[in-house]
Amino acid sequence: MNLPGSATIVEVGPRDGLQNEPVFVPTERKIELIERLAEAGLKRIEVTSFVHPKAVPQLMDASEVVGRIRRRPDVVYSALVPNEKGLERALASEVGEIAFFVSASETHNRKNVGMTSGKSMEGFRKIAETALAKGIRIRGYVVTAFGCPDEGAVPPENVERIVDSYRSLGIHEIALGDTTGMANPSHVSRLVARIMPRMGTMGLALHFHDTRGMALANVLAALQQGVTVFDGSIGGLGGCPYAPGATGNVATEDLANMLEEMGIRTGIDLGKLIECARYTREIVGRSLPGHLATAGRIRK
Amino acid sequence: MNLPGSATIVEVGPRDGLQNEPVFVPTERKIELIERLAEAGLKRIEVTSFVHPKAVPQLMDASEVVGRIRRRPDVVYSALVPNEKGLERALASEVGEIAFFVSASETHNRKNVGMTSGKSMEGFRKIAETALAKGIRIRGYVVTAFGCPDEGAVPPENVERIVDSYRSLGIHEIALGDTTGMANPSHVSRLVARIMPRMGTMGLALHFHDTRGMALANVLAALQQGVTVFDGSIGGLGGCPYAPGATGNVATEDLANMLEEMGIRTGIDLGKLIECARYTREIVGRSLPGHLATAGRIRK
Repeated sequence: MNLPGSATIVEVGPRDGLQNEPVFVPTERKIELIERLAEAGLKRIEVTSFVHPKAVPQLMDASEVVGRIRRRPDVVYSALVPNEKGLERALASEVGEIAFFVSASETHNRKNVGMTSGKSMEGFRKIAETALAKGIRIRGYVVTAFGCPDEGAVPPENVERIVDSYRSLGIHEIALGDTTGMANPSHVSRLVARIMPRMGTMGLALHFHDTRGMALANVLAALQQGVTVFDGSIGGLGGCPYAPGATGNVATEDLANMLEEMGIRTGIDLGKLIECARYTREIVGRSLPGHLATAGRIRK
Repeated sequence: MNLPGSATIVEVGPRDGLQNEPVFVPTERKIELIERLAEAGLKRIEVTSFVHPKAVPQLMDASEVVGRIRRRPDVVYSALVPNEKGLERALASEVGEIAFFVSASETHNRKNVGMTSGKSMEGFRKIAETALAKGIRIRGYVVTAFGCPDEGAVPPENVERIVDSYRSLGIHEIALGDTTGMANPSHVSRLVARIMPRMGTMGLALHFHDTRGMALANVLAALQQGVTVFDGSIGGLGGCPYAPGATGNVATEDLANMLEEMGIRTGIDLGKLIECARYTREIVGRSLPGHLATAGRIRK
């Protein structure tokens, strides 16, 4: 099997996970979680979202969270930014990276932010320059890249168009999002092969949800295509508020475990990561779908 | 990606699943489940185990179950057989296939049946002839083929030895069991590549547990090595009574869904299979780990 020697996990739980929790997790505990994740060896953490507090009250403390984390010099703390106002707040908080998002499905984009995908991209075009001028890296999510719960199959041309637009904006990295777990390994292989030639100097990350149990199989297919950056959410926290049945991102600890078991280095301390997953269960007050915190590590 | 055009799923839930449930599922409902599984298109179903009723009281009605199923001519109904007494009962019930099991870990074999793996194989040697003379196919499980929760890593030589012994017995098919979810895709590739040349005319099946979320990734790795027979347990029912933390076989519906989504034909009606998974939840009275019964099919 042709596999890379190492891979990077981007932790998105504090943002993609917590934004979907029915409870408001106290600011202190969010900070504690982020610091523990960094302590476990994660070098990229999406810590919050600068959306309007009315839209996502769970993350209304975004500025405070970003401002109060004890930052490690080797960790990049990023935040989702939906618009100009969000960018202002993100800049004031001095995040290291911001993330934009455009859906490959018009229906999903409209439900998510009330405008067409083209209009979303226009908005990001206006604010990208400001961010780049400040030396801030930008990640561009392609939401519902593998299918939309409302529209069904999403034409790969839609994904290509968004990738091309992001590229013209000076984006650092594209993240293809399987927002509601509709991807399968063959689909992943095909889409990645199709997108790769258009990437230029941009990096490619994959963001899988485990809605139908295929997340790690999809990771395997992507690894075989040379992808080395994957998103995970601690404990398997998360989903998508506008996509019914979307039962969460792949659990960071399950992802890290598979990679490490396959001999692909992640730089992560699995024992500490399992502790993070257990802490996450505690702060959201419910069981989570991640496997490793229950099953434990594999005995050698 | 080099993939087969079709694959076969062997349903093991009524045996491997129900033997681990704390409740006794009434005989009527077991029969109903098996008939529904056949109706959904499964052509191979392991329906029960002829172990001593004291060892596995959940399956004490083995003879009655096998005797009362309305059999379809195109479905093979099989049963686990641990010894001569079990074989007698299986023959009296006229099962179409029997299954033997030997663990690749001595510790696990001893905990499971109180004897060495060699002693287990000797016992099976004695009864294989009787079964084969009656024209009954035999499946041979290699239990803990990918690791043992007590011993840790299992040397591939142990697996090879058991495969060679089974072959000399006239076994029809080997099933490599990842009893407690310790396999990873690289490991699967390596072990399958190593075992394949020793298979002769025997078929190779893989039996994965989703203990650490890797079952479908392991299926993908095996498909790429040319394996086309996979075990599943409806709803994700099951585990292993002597292996703590073994949280169940891969769910048949999740497995069938991945294969069908990848364009690999299974002959299964996914809608009916999801109904079977929901019925299984009902008869065991608890939620089950399978994803598809909650998430639903992927919208086209």
